[in-house]
Amino acid sequence: MKIALVAPSCTLKQEAAELVAALAATRPDCELMIHPQCFLSDGHFAGSDEQRLGALREVMADESVDAIWFARGGYGSNRIAEAACAGLSPAAKRKTYLGYSDAGFLLAGLHKAGCEVAHGPMPQDILRDGGEAAVARSLDWLLTRDPRAVEPSLSYPAQAYNLTVLSSLLGTAVEPDLDGYELLIEEVSEHHYRIDRLMFHITGSANVRKVVELRVGNMSDIPDNDPVWGSDEEAIVRDWCSQAAINYGGRAIIGHDVANRVVPFGRKTS
Amino acid sequence: MKIALVAPSCTLKQEAAELVAALAATRPDCELMIHPQCFLSDGHFAGSDEQRLGALREVMADESVDAIWFARGGYGSNRIAEAACAGLSPAAKRKTYLGYSDAGFLLAGLHKAGCEVAHGPMPQDILRDGGEAAVARSLDWLLTRDPRAVEPSLSYPAQAYNLTVLSSLLGTAVEPDLDGYELLIEEVSEHHYRIDRLMFHITGSANVRKVVELRVGNMSDIPDNDPVWGSDEEAIVRDWCSQAAINYGGRAIIGHDVANRVVPFGRKTS
Repeated sequence: MKIALVAPSCTLKQEAAELVAALAATRPDCELMIHPQCFLSDGHFAGSDEQRLGALREVMADESVDAIWFARGGYGSNRIAEAACAGLSPAAKRKTYLGYSDAGFLLAGLHKAGCEVAHGPMPQDILRDGGEAAVARSLDWLLTRDPRAVEPSLSYPAQAYNLTVLSSLLGTAVEPDLDGYELLIEEVSEHHYRIDRLMFHITGSANVRKVVELRVGNMSDIPDNDPVWGSDEEAIVRDWCSQAAINYGGRAIIGHDVANRVVPFGRKTS
Repeated sequence: MKIALVAPSCTLKQEAAELVAALAATRPDCELMIHPQCFLSDGHFAGSDEQRLGALREVMADESVDAIWFARGGYGSNRIAEAACAGLSPAAKRKTYLGYSDAGFLLAGLHKAGCEVAHGPMPQDILRDGGEAAVARSLDWLLTRDPRAVEPSLSYPAQAYNLTVLSSLLGTAVEPDLDGYELLIEEVSEHHYRIDRLMFHITGSANVRKVVELRVGNMSDIPDNDPVWGSDEEAIVRDWCSQAAINYGGRAIIGHDVANRVVPFGRKTS
Protein backbone atom coordinates (compact mmCIF):
# COMPACT_ATOMS: atom_id res chain seq x y z
CA MET A 1 0.00 0.00 0.00
CA LYS A 2 1.30 3.41 -0.95
CA ILE A 3 0.36 6.24 1.41
CA ALA A 4 0.97 9.85 0.35
CA LEU A 5 1.41 12.66 2.88
CA VAL A 6 0.41 16.20 1.92
CA ALA A 7 -0.21 19.22 4.17
CA PRO A 8 -3.34 21.18 3.15
CA SER A 9 -3.13 23.38 6.27
CA CYS A 10 0.14 24.10 8.14
CA THR A 11 3.73 22.96 7.75
CA LEU A 12 4.70 19.48 8.95
CA LYS A 13 7.67 19.39 11.31
CA GLN A 14 10.71 17.62 9.88
CA GLU A 15 11.15 15.69 13.10
CA ALA A 16 7.61 14.34 12.87
CA ALA A 17 8.15 13.28 9.27
CA GLU A 18 11.31 11.37 10.20
CA LEU A 19 9.64 9.57 13.10
CA VAL A 20 6.62 8.58 11.02
CA ALA A 21 8.84 7.41 8.16
CA ALA A 22 10.79 5.22 10.60
CA LEU A 23 7.56 3.81 12.00
CA ALA A 24 6.16 3.07 8.55
CA ALA A 25 9.42 1.35 7.54
CA THR A 26 8.74 -1.33 10.18
CA ARG A 27 5.41 -2.23 8.58
CA PRO A 28 5.10 -4.81 5.84
CA ASP A 29 3.50 -3.65 2.59
CA CYS A 30 3.75 0.03 3.51
CA GLU A 31 5.30 2.62 1.27
CA LEU A 32 5.18 6.16 2.64
CA MET A 33 5.56 9.03 0.18
CA ILE A 34 6.08 12.34 1.97
CA HIS A 35 5.35 15.08 -0.57
CA PRO A 36 7.91 17.91 -0.33
CA GLN A 37 5.00 20.37 -0.11
CA CYS A 38 4.62 19.27 3.53
CA PHE A 39 7.68 21.33 4.41
CA LEU A 40 6.84 24.51 2.51
CA SER A 41 6.04 27.62 4.51
CA ASP A 42 4.10 30.68 3.33
CA GLY A 43 2.87 32.85 6.21
CA HIS A 44 0.42 30.74 8.17
CA PHE A 45 0.37 27.91 5.66
CA ALA A 46 2.39 25.01 4.24
CA GLY A 47 2.84 26.90 0.99
CA SER A 48 0.43 29.10 -0.93
CA ASP A 49 -3.11 28.00 -1.70
CA GLU A 50 -1.90 27.09 -5.19
CA GLN A 51 0.97 25.01 -3.85
CA ARG A 52 -1.17 23.17 -1.30
CA LEU A 53 -3.95 22.52 -3.80
CA GLY A 54 -1.42 21.52 -6.45
CA ALA A 55 0.26 18.93 -4.22
CA LEU A 56 -3.09 17.52 -3.12
CA ARG A 57 -4.35 17.26 -6.69
CA GLU A 58 -1.09 15.66 -7.74
CA VAL A 59 -1.35 12.81 -5.24
CA MET A 60 -5.10 12.48 -5.84
CA ALA A 61 -4.41 11.91 -9.55
CA ASP A 62 -1.52 9.50 -8.92
CA GLU A 63 -2.68 5.98 -9.89
CA SER A 64 0.01 4.42 -7.69
CA VAL A 65 -1.24 6.08 -4.48
CA ASP A 66 -3.78 4.13 -2.40
CA ALA A 67 -4.32 6.50 0.51
CA ILE A 68 -3.78 10.19 1.31
CA TRP A 69 -2.88 11.00 4.88
CA PHE A 70 -3.15 14.66 5.83
CA ALA A 71 0.08 15.58 7.60
CA ARG A 72 -1.36 17.87 10.26
CA GLY A 73 -4.08 20.41 11.05
CA GLY A 74 -3.74 24.05 12.06
CA TYR A 75 -5.70 26.18 9.64
CA GLY A 76 -6.11 26.45 5.89
CA SER A 77 -7.64 23.38 4.25
CA ASN A 78 -10.97 25.22 3.90
CA ARG A 79 -9.25 27.62 1.46
CA ILE A 80 -8.73 24.80 -1.05
CA ALA A 81 -11.46 22.30 -0.11
CA GLU A 82 -14.12 23.25 -2.65
CA ALA A 83 -11.62 23.22 -5.52
CA ALA A 84 -10.01 19.97 -4.34
CA CYS A 85 -13.36 18.17 -4.20
CA ALA A 86 -14.68 19.32 -7.57
CA GLY A 87 -14.59 17.11 -10.64
CA LEU A 88 -12.82 14.15 -9.02
CA SER A 89 -11.02 11.68 -11.27
CA PRO A 90 -11.58 7.91 -10.91
CA ALA A 91 -8.08 7.71 -9.38
CA ALA A 92 -9.06 10.28 -6.72
CA LYS A 93 -12.35 8.53 -6.00
CA ARG A 94 -10.86 5.11 -5.29
CA LYS A 95 -8.44 6.41 -2.62
CA THR A 96 -8.82 6.57 1.14
CA TYR A 97 -8.35 9.91 2.94
CA LEU A 98 -7.42 10.24 6.62
CA GLY A 99 -7.02 13.18 8.99
CA TYR A 100 -8.89 15.32 11.51
CA SER A 101 -9.05 18.82 13.02
CA ASP A 102 -8.65 21.40 10.24
CA ALA A 103 -8.53 18.55 7.70
CA GLY A 104 -12.25 18.09 8.45
CA PHE A 105 -13.03 20.57 5.69
CA LEU A 106 -11.56 18.04 3.24
CA LEU A 107 -13.11 15.02 4.95
CA ALA A 108 -16.52 16.65 4.53
CA GLY A 109 -16.05 17.54 0.89
CA LEU A 110 -14.42 14.25 -0.10
CA HIS A 111 -17.06 12.14 1.67
CA LYS A 112 -19.76 14.16 -0.01
CA ALA A 113 -18.04 13.51 -3.35
CA GLY A 114 -18.19 9.76 -2.73
CA CYS A 115 -14.69 9.00 -1.42
CA GLU A 116 -13.77 6.77 1.53
CA VAL A 117 -12.65 9.04 4.36
CA ALA A 118 -11.83 8.64 8.03
CA HIS A 119 -11.24 10.92 11.02
CA GLY A 120 -8.10 9.89 12.84
CA PRO A 121 -4.56 10.68 14.03
CA MET A 122 -2.18 12.50 11.72
CA PRO A 123 1.62 12.30 11.31
CA GLN A 124 2.31 15.46 13.37
CA ASP A 125 0.61 13.73 16.35
CA ILE A 126 3.75 11.59 16.75
CA LEU A 127 5.34 14.56 18.54
CA ARG A 128 2.81 14.30 21.38
CA ASP A 129 3.87 12.43 24.51
CA GLY A 130 2.84 8.86 23.65
CA GLY A 131 2.02 9.94 20.11
CA GLU A 132 3.56 6.92 18.39
CA ALA A 133 0.60 4.81 19.53
CA ALA A 134 -1.82 7.30 18.00
CA VAL A 135 -0.02 7.39 14.67
CA ALA A 136 0.37 3.59 14.69
CA ARG A 137 -3.41 3.36 15.05
CA SER A 138 -3.91 5.27 11.82
CA LEU A 139 -1.37 3.08 10.05
CA ASP A 140 -3.09 -0.04 11.42
CA TRP A 141 -6.38 1.14 10.05
CA LEU A 142 -5.00 2.23 6.67
CA LEU A 143 -3.02 -1.00 6.15
CA THR A 144 -5.35 -3.67 7.50
CA ARG A 145 -8.61 -1.95 8.60
CA ASP A 146 -7.71 -3.20 12.09
CA PRO A 147 -10.95 -2.90 14.12
CA ARG A 148 -8.94 -2.21 17.31
CA ALA A 149 -7.98 1.17 15.83
CA VAL A 150 -11.61 2.20 15.44
CA GLU A 151 -13.74 4.17 17.90
CA PRO A 152 -15.39 1.32 19.83
CA SER A 153 -19.00 2.53 20.17
CA LEU A 154 -20.03 3.34 16.61
CA SER A 155 -23.62 2.18 16.14
CA TYR A 156 -24.60 3.92 12.91
CA PRO A 157 -22.94 5.29 9.80
CA ALA A 158 -20.80 8.01 11.35
CA GLN A 159 -19.09 11.30 10.65
CA ALA A 160 -16.69 13.06 13.01
CA TYR A 161 -15.54 16.66 13.10
CA ASN A 162 -13.84 19.28 15.14
CA LEU A 163 -16.67 21.43 16.48
CA THR A 164 -15.31 24.72 15.13
CA VAL A 165 -14.72 23.12 11.73
CA LEU A 166 -18.27 21.73 11.63
CA SER A 167 -19.67 25.14 12.54
CA SER A 168 -17.64 26.71 9.73
CA LEU A 169 -18.81 24.09 7.23
CA LEU A 170 -22.52 24.78 7.67
CA GLY A 171 -24.03 26.58 4.70
CA THR A 172 -20.92 26.27 2.52
CA ALA A 173 -20.37 24.26 -0.66
CA VAL A 174 -18.65 21.51 1.35
CA GLU A 175 -21.29 21.18 4.09
CA PRO A 176 -21.76 17.48 4.83
CA ASP A 177 -25.17 15.79 4.67
CA LEU A 178 -25.69 14.60 8.26
CA ASP A 179 -29.19 13.17 7.85
CA GLY A 180 -29.21 9.69 9.38
CA TYR A 181 -25.61 9.78 10.63
CA GLU A 182 -24.08 9.44 14.05
CA LEU A 183 -22.18 12.68 14.62
CA LEU A 184 -19.03 12.79 16.75
CA ILE A 185 -17.47 16.09 17.72
CA GLU A 186 -14.30 17.12 19.52
CA GLU A 187 -12.64 20.43 20.31
CA VAL A 188 -9.38 21.95 21.51
CA SER A 189 -8.36 25.29 23.02
CA GLU A 190 -11.77 26.96 23.00
CA HIS A 191 -13.31 28.68 26.04
CA HIS A 192 -16.51 27.31 27.54
CA TYR A 193 -18.44 30.32 26.25
CA ARG A 194 -17.17 29.62 22.74
CA ILE A 195 -18.10 25.93 23.00
CA ASP A 196 -21.55 27.06 24.11
CA ARG A 197 -21.87 29.46 21.16
CA LEU A 198 -20.67 26.78 18.72
CA MET A 199 -23.20 24.30 20.12
CA PHE A 200 -25.94 26.94 19.75
CA HIS A 201 -24.88 27.30 16.13
CA ILE A 202 -24.61 23.67 15.10
CA THR A 203 -27.75 22.52 16.96
CA GLY A 204 -29.67 25.37 15.31
CA SER A 205 -28.97 23.77 11.94
CA ALA A 206 -31.79 21.77 10.30
CA ASN A 207 -29.11 19.47 8.88
CA VAL A 208 -27.48 18.74 12.25
CA ARG A 209 -30.92 18.12 13.77
CA LYS A 210 -31.28 15.11 11.45
CA VAL A 211 -28.42 13.13 13.03
CA VAL A 212 -29.44 9.87 14.72
CA GLU A 213 -27.29 10.79 17.68
CA LEU A 214 -24.49 13.09 18.71
CA ARG A 215 -21.54 12.06 20.85
CA VAL A 216 -18.80 14.25 22.25
CA GLY A 217 -15.12 13.38 22.35
CA ASN A 218 -12.38 15.11 24.26
CA MET A 219 -12.54 18.89 24.54
CA SER A 220 -9.01 19.57 25.65
CA ASP A 221 -6.94 22.57 26.75
CA ILE A 222 -10.02 24.68 27.54
CA PRO A 223 -8.74 28.13 28.58
CA ASP A 224 -10.00 29.57 31.86
CA ASN A 225 -13.36 31.26 31.46
CA ASP A 226 -13.68 34.69 33.08
CA PRO A 227 -15.90 34.57 35.06
CA VAL A 228 -15.93 30.84 35.90
CA TRP A 229 -18.39 29.10 33.57
CA GLY A 230 -20.04 26.92 36.21
CA SER A 231 -20.59 23.69 34.26
CA ASP A 232 -18.49 21.52 31.95
CA GLU A 233 -18.34 20.81 28.25
CA GLU A 234 -20.44 17.67 28.45
CA ALA A 235 -23.20 19.59 30.23
CA ILE A 236 -23.06 22.23 27.48
CA VAL A 237 -23.38 19.63 24.72
CA ARG A 238 -26.14 17.76 26.54
CA ASP A 239 -28.08 20.96 27.15
CA TRP A 240 -28.04 22.11 23.52
CA CYS A 241 -28.89 18.60 22.26
CA SER A 242 -31.85 18.57 24.62
CA GLN A 243 -33.08 21.97 23.40
CA ALA A 244 -32.80 20.87 19.76
CA ALA A 245 -34.34 17.41 20.32
CA ILE A 246 -31.09 15.71 19.25
CA ASN A 247 -30.31 12.35 20.85
CA TYR A 248 -27.23 12.75 23.02
CA GLY A 249 -25.28 9.50 22.87
CA GLY A 250 -22.56 10.09 25.48
CA ARG A 251 -18.80 10.40 25.16
CA ALA A 252 -16.59 9.31 22.26
CA ILE A 253 -12.90 8.44 22.08
CA ILE A 254 -11.77 11.13 19.67
CA GLY A 255 -9.92 14.36 20.25
CA HIS A 256 -6.64 16.26 20.07
CA ASP A 257 -4.82 13.64 22.16
CA VAL A 258 -3.06 10.30 21.84
CA ALA A 259 -6.21 8.27 22.62
CA ASN A 260 -7.83 9.58 19.40
CA ARG A 261 -9.43 6.59 17.63
CA VAL A 262 -10.22 6.28 13.95
CA VAL A 263 -13.78 7.06 12.82
CA PRO A 264 -14.39 5.70 9.31
CA PHE A 265 -17.15 7.78 7.74
CA GLY A 266 -20.07 5.56 6.88
CA ARG A 267 -22.65 5.50 4.11
CA LYS A 268 -26.33 5.47 4.71
CA THR A 269 -28.02 2.36 3.38
CA SER A 270 -31.12 3.81 1.81
CA MET B 1 -38.91 59.21 25.82
CA LYS B 2 -38.48 56.32 28.19
CA ILE B 3 -35.45 54.11 27.56
CA ALA B 4 -35.13 50.79 29.38
CA LEU B 5 -31.77 49.09 29.98
CA VAL B 6 -31.59 45.31 30.25
CA ALA B 7 -28.57 43.01 30.01
CA PRO B 8 -29.26 39.92 27.86
CA SER B 9 -25.59 38.87 27.93
CA CYS B 10 -23.16 39.84 30.74
CA THR B 11 -23.45 41.99 33.88
CA LEU B 12 -23.38 45.78 33.54
CA LYS B 13 -20.81 47.52 35.72
CA GLN B 14 -22.35 49.75 38.40
CA GLU B 15 -19.93 52.54 37.50
CA ALA B 16 -21.09 52.49 33.88
CA ALA B 17 -24.73 52.62 34.95
CA GLU B 18 -24.09 55.67 37.12
CA LEU B 19 -22.21 57.53 34.40
CA VAL B 20 -24.89 56.81 31.79
CA ALA B 21 -27.65 57.82 34.21
CA ALA B 22 -25.86 61.13 34.84
CA LEU B 23 -25.46 61.70 31.11
CA ALA B 24 -29.11 60.92 30.39
CA ALA B 25 -30.19 63.28 33.18
CA THR B 26 -28.73 66.20 31.19
CA ARG B 27 -30.97 65.42 28.21
CA PRO B 28 -34.44 66.89 27.85
CA ASP B 29 -37.28 64.42 27.44
CA CYS B 30 -35.15 61.42 28.48
CA GLU B 31 -36.15 59.00 31.18
CA LEU B 32 -33.70 56.16 31.74
CA MET B 33 -34.97 53.03 33.48
CA ILE B 34 -32.12 50.71 34.45
CA HIS B 35 -33.64 47.31 35.12
CA PRO B 36 -32.13 45.69 38.25
CA GLN B 37 -31.48 42.55 36.18
CA CYS B 38 -28.52 44.44 34.65
CA PHE B 39 -26.58 43.85 37.89
CA LEU B 40 -27.38 40.18 38.43
CA SER B 41 -24.57 37.67 38.07
CA ASP B 42 -24.89 33.95 37.40
CA GLY B 43 -21.65 32.38 36.19
CA HIS B 44 -20.86 33.99 32.85
CA PHE B 45 -24.17 35.81 32.61
CA ALA B 46 -26.20 38.71 34.02
CA GLY B 47 -28.54 36.26 35.71
CA SER B 48 -29.89 32.93 34.54
CA ASP B 49 -31.46 32.50 31.10
CA GLU B 50 -34.85 32.76 32.79
CA GLN B 51 -33.92 35.99 34.57
CA ARG B 52 -32.44 37.62 31.48
CA LEU B 53 -35.36 36.56 29.29
CA GLY B 54 -37.83 37.57 31.97
CA ALA B 55 -36.42 41.10 32.31
CA LEU B 56 -36.30 41.53 28.55
CA ARG B 57 -39.89 40.34 28.12
CA GLU B 58 -40.98 42.61 30.96
CA VAL B 59 -39.65 45.78 29.34
CA MET B 60 -40.81 44.62 25.89
CA ALA B 61 -44.37 44.34 27.24
CA ASP B 62 -44.22 47.66 29.11
CA GLU B 63 -46.47 50.16 27.27
CA SER B 64 -44.60 53.09 28.85
CA VAL B 65 -41.21 52.07 27.39
CA ASP B 66 -40.26 53.54 24.00
CA ALA B 67 -36.82 52.04 23.49
CA ILE B 68 -34.77 49.14 24.81
CA TRP B 69 -31.03 49.70 25.05
CA PHE B 70 -28.95 46.59 25.60
CA ALA B 71 -26.56 47.34 28.45
CA ARG B 72 -23.51 45.54 27.13
CA GLY B 73 -22.26 42.56 25.13
CA GLY B 74 -20.06 39.67 26.20
CA TYR B 75 -21.84 36.43 25.54
CA GLY B 76 -25.29 35.00 26.11
CA SER B 77 -28.07 36.79 24.20
CA ASN B 78 -28.21 33.90 21.70
CA ARG B 79 -29.44 31.66 24.53
CA ILE B 80 -32.66 33.66 24.81
CA ALA B 81 -33.00 35.25 21.36
CA GLU B 82 -35.39 32.78 19.73
CA ALA B 83 -37.76 32.86 22.73
CA ALA B 84 -37.53 36.65 23.05
CA CYS B 85 -38.45 37.18 19.40
CA ALA B 86 -41.39 34.75 19.28
CA GLY B 87 -44.99 35.94 19.46
CA LEU B 88 -44.23 39.63 19.89
CA SER B 89 -46.91 41.84 21.41
CA PRO B 90 -47.93 45.14 19.76
CA ALA B 91 -46.12 46.91 22.61
CA ALA B 92 -42.90 45.03 21.79
CA LYS B 93 -43.27 45.69 18.07
CA ARG B 94 -43.56 49.46 18.34
CA LYS B 95 -40.32 49.85 20.33
CA THR B 96 -36.80 50.62 19.15
CA TYR B 97 -33.93 48.29 20.09
CA LEU B 98 -30.27 49.35 20.20
CA GLY B 99 -27.02 47.49 20.85
CA TYR B 100 -24.20 45.62 19.10
CA SER B 101 -21.62 42.85 19.58
CA ASP B 102 -23.28 39.88 21.32
CA ALA B 103 -26.60 41.79 21.23
CA GLY B 104 -26.55 41.16 17.46
CA PHE B 105 -28.40 37.88 18.06
CA LEU B 106 -31.33 39.97 19.31
CA LEU B 107 -30.96 42.64 16.62
CA ALA B 108 -31.25 39.90 13.99
CA GLY B 109 -34.29 38.25 15.51
CA LEU B 110 -36.11 41.48 16.35
CA HIS B 111 -35.52 42.98 12.90
CA LYS B 112 -36.75 39.77 11.32
CA ALA B 113 -39.86 40.02 13.54
CA GLY B 114 -40.56 43.51 12.22
CA CYS B 115 -39.14 45.75 14.95
CA GLU B 116 -37.03 48.88 14.50
CA VAL B 117 -33.48 48.01 15.52
CA ALA B 118 -30.08 49.69 15.32
CA HIS B 119 -26.46 48.66 15.80
CA GLY B 120 -24.68 51.15 18.02
CA PRO B 121 -22.84 51.98 21.26
CA MET B 122 -24.07 50.50 24.53
CA PRO B 123 -24.01 51.85 28.11
CA GLN B 124 -20.93 49.83 29.15
CA ASP B 125 -18.97 51.63 26.39
CA ILE B 126 -18.91 54.72 28.62
CA LEU B 127 -16.01 53.09 30.51
CA ARG B 128 -13.79 53.27 27.42
CA ASP B 129 -11.37 56.17 27.16
CA GLY B 130 -13.53 58.79 25.41
CA GLY B 131 -16.56 56.55 25.77
CA GLU B 132 -18.98 59.32 26.75
CA ALA B 133 -19.04 60.53 23.15
CA ALA B 134 -19.92 57.05 21.95
CA VAL B 135 -22.76 56.64 24.43
CA ALA B 136 -23.99 60.19 23.73
CA ARG B 137 -24.22 59.23 20.07
CA SER B 138 -26.65 56.43 20.87
CA LEU B 139 -28.70 58.78 23.04
CA ASP B 140 -28.70 61.38 20.24
CA TRP B 141 -30.02 58.82 17.84
CA LEU B 142 -32.62 57.37 20.21
CA LEU B 143 -33.92 60.80 21.28
CA THR B 144 -33.88 62.80 18.04
CA ARG B 145 -32.71 60.43 15.24
CA ASP B 146 -29.75 62.84 14.93
CA PRO B 147 -28.20 62.05 11.52
CA ARG B 148 -24.73 62.98 12.83
CA ALA B 149 -24.85 59.85 15.00
CA VAL B 150 -25.33 57.60 12.00
CA GLU B 151 -22.66 55.79 9.98
CA PRO B 152 -22.03 58.32 7.21
CA SER B 153 -21.79 56.12 4.11
CA LEU B 154 -24.96 54.04 4.19
CA SER B 155 -26.27 53.74 0.63
CA TYR B 156 -28.81 50.95 0.95
CA PRO B 157 -31.03 49.41 3.62
CA ALA B 158 -28.39 48.12 6.00
CA GLN B 159 -27.71 45.56 8.69
CA ALA B 160 -24.59 45.44 10.86
CA TYR B 161 -23.15 42.61 12.91
CA ASN B 162 -20.13 41.41 14.75
CA LEU B 163 -18.52 38.89 12.39
CA THR B 164 -18.49 36.02 14.90
CA VAL B 165 -22.11 36.70 15.79
CA LEU B 166 -23.15 36.72 12.12
CA SER B 167 -21.33 33.43 11.54
CA SER B 168 -23.14 31.93 14.54
CA LEU B 169 -26.52 33.19 13.30
CA LEU B 170 -26.36 31.44 9.92
CA GLY B 171 -28.73 28.49 9.71
CA THR B 172 -30.45 29.22 13.03
CA ALA B 173 -34.01 30.32 13.72
CA VAL B 174 -32.85 33.94 14.10
CA GLU B 175 -30.75 34.09 10.92
CA PRO B 176 -31.39 37.47 9.28
CA ASP B 177 -32.56 37.80 5.67
CA LEU B 178 -29.68 39.68 4.01
CA ASP B 179 -31.02 39.69 0.45
CA GLY B 180 -30.75 43.22 -0.89
CA TYR B 181 -29.09 44.71 2.18
CA GLU B 182 -25.82 46.49 2.71
CA LEU B 183 -23.95 44.36 5.25
CA LEU B 184 -21.52 45.93 7.71
CA ILE B 185 -19.28 43.75 9.88
CA GLU B 186 -16.84 44.40 12.70
CA GLU B 187 -14.76 42.21 14.99
CA VAL B 188 -12.70 42.29 18.17
CA SER B 189 -10.03 40.04 19.69
CA GLU B 190 -9.92 37.40 16.98
CA HIS B 191 -6.72 36.17 15.32
CA HIS B 192 -6.21 36.73 11.60
CA TYR B 193 -6.63 33.01 10.94
CA ARG B 194 -9.98 33.09 12.75
CA ILE B 195 -11.11 36.17 10.80
CA ASP B 196 -10.16 34.31 7.63
CA ARG B 197 -12.14 31.21 8.69
CA LEU B 198 -15.15 33.35 9.64
CA MET B 199 -15.04 35.10 6.26
CA PHE B 200 -14.84 31.70 4.53
CA HIS B 201 -17.94 30.73 6.45
CA ILE B 202 -20.10 33.79 5.93
CA THR B 203 -19.16 34.29 2.28
CA GLY B 204 -19.99 30.62 1.64
CA SER B 205 -23.59 31.35 2.64
CA ALA B 206 -26.15 31.75 -0.15
CA ASN B 207 -27.92 34.32 2.04
CA VAL B 208 -24.80 36.47 2.55
CA ARG B 209 -24.05 36.29 -1.18
CA LYS B 210 -27.27 38.23 -1.81
CA VAL B 211 -26.10 41.42 -0.06
CA VAL B 212 -25.75 44.46 -2.31
CA GLU B 213 -22.41 45.19 -0.75
CA LEU B 214 -20.29 44.34 2.27
CA ARG B 215 -18.26 46.87 4.24
CA VAL B 216 -15.85 46.23 7.07
CA GLY B 217 -15.59 48.29 10.23
CA ASN B 218 -12.86 48.19 12.82
CA MET B 219 -11.34 44.82 13.67
CA SER B 220 -9.60 45.70 16.89
CA ASP B 221 -7.28 44.01 19.38
CA ILE B 222 -6.24 41.30 16.92
CA PRO B 223 -3.93 38.92 18.84
CA ASP B 224 -0.56 38.12 17.28
CA ASN B 225 -0.80 35.35 14.72
CA ASP B 226 1.83 32.60 15.01
CA PRO B 227 3.33 32.52 12.44
CA VAL B 228 2.84 36.09 11.18
CA TRP B 229 -0.23 36.17 8.94
CA GLY B 230 1.27 38.30 6.18
CA SER B 231 -1.70 40.48 5.23
CA ASP B 232 -4.31 42.49 7.12
CA GLU B 233 -7.98 42.16 7.94
CA GLU B 234 -9.14 44.32 5.05
CA ALA B 235 -7.19 42.16 2.59
CA ILE B 236 -8.84 39.07 4.10
CA VAL B 237 -12.34 40.54 3.72
CA ARG B 238 -11.64 41.80 0.21
CA ASP B 239 -10.25 38.42 -0.85
CA TRP B 240 -13.23 36.40 0.35
CA CYS B 241 -15.70 38.90 -1.14
CA SER B 242 -13.92 38.59 -4.44
CA GLN B 243 -14.05 34.78 -4.38
CA ALA B 244 -17.78 34.84 -3.56
CA ALA B 245 -18.63 37.59 -6.09
CA ILE B 246 -19.79 39.92 -3.29
CA ASN B 247 -19.33 43.65 -3.85
CA TYR B 248 -16.76 44.93 -1.37
CA GLY B 249 -17.74 48.48 -0.45
CA GLY B 250 -14.75 49.59 1.66
CA ARG B 251 -14.46 50.50 5.33
CA ALA B 252 -17.24 51.41 7.76
CA ILE B 253 -17.21 53.41 10.99
CA ILE B 254 -18.40 50.70 13.34
CA GLY B 255 -16.51 48.58 15.86
CA HIS B 256 -15.61 47.94 19.47
CA ASP B 257 -14.31 51.47 19.94
CA VAL B 258 -15.50 55.00 20.73
CA ALA B 259 -15.88 55.96 17.06
CA ASN B 260 -18.64 53.34 16.65
CA ARG B 261 -21.52 54.99 14.74
CA VAL B 262 -25.15 53.98 14.77
CA VAL B 263 -26.42 51.77 11.94
CA PRO B 264 -30.23 51.80 11.81
CA PHE B 265 -31.35 48.55 10.19
CA GLY B 266 -33.28 49.33 7.05
CA ARG B 267 -36.21 47.75 5.27
CA LYS B 268 -36.14 46.71 1.68
CA THR B 269 -38.64 48.59 -0.46
CA SER B 270 -40.02 45.84 -2.61
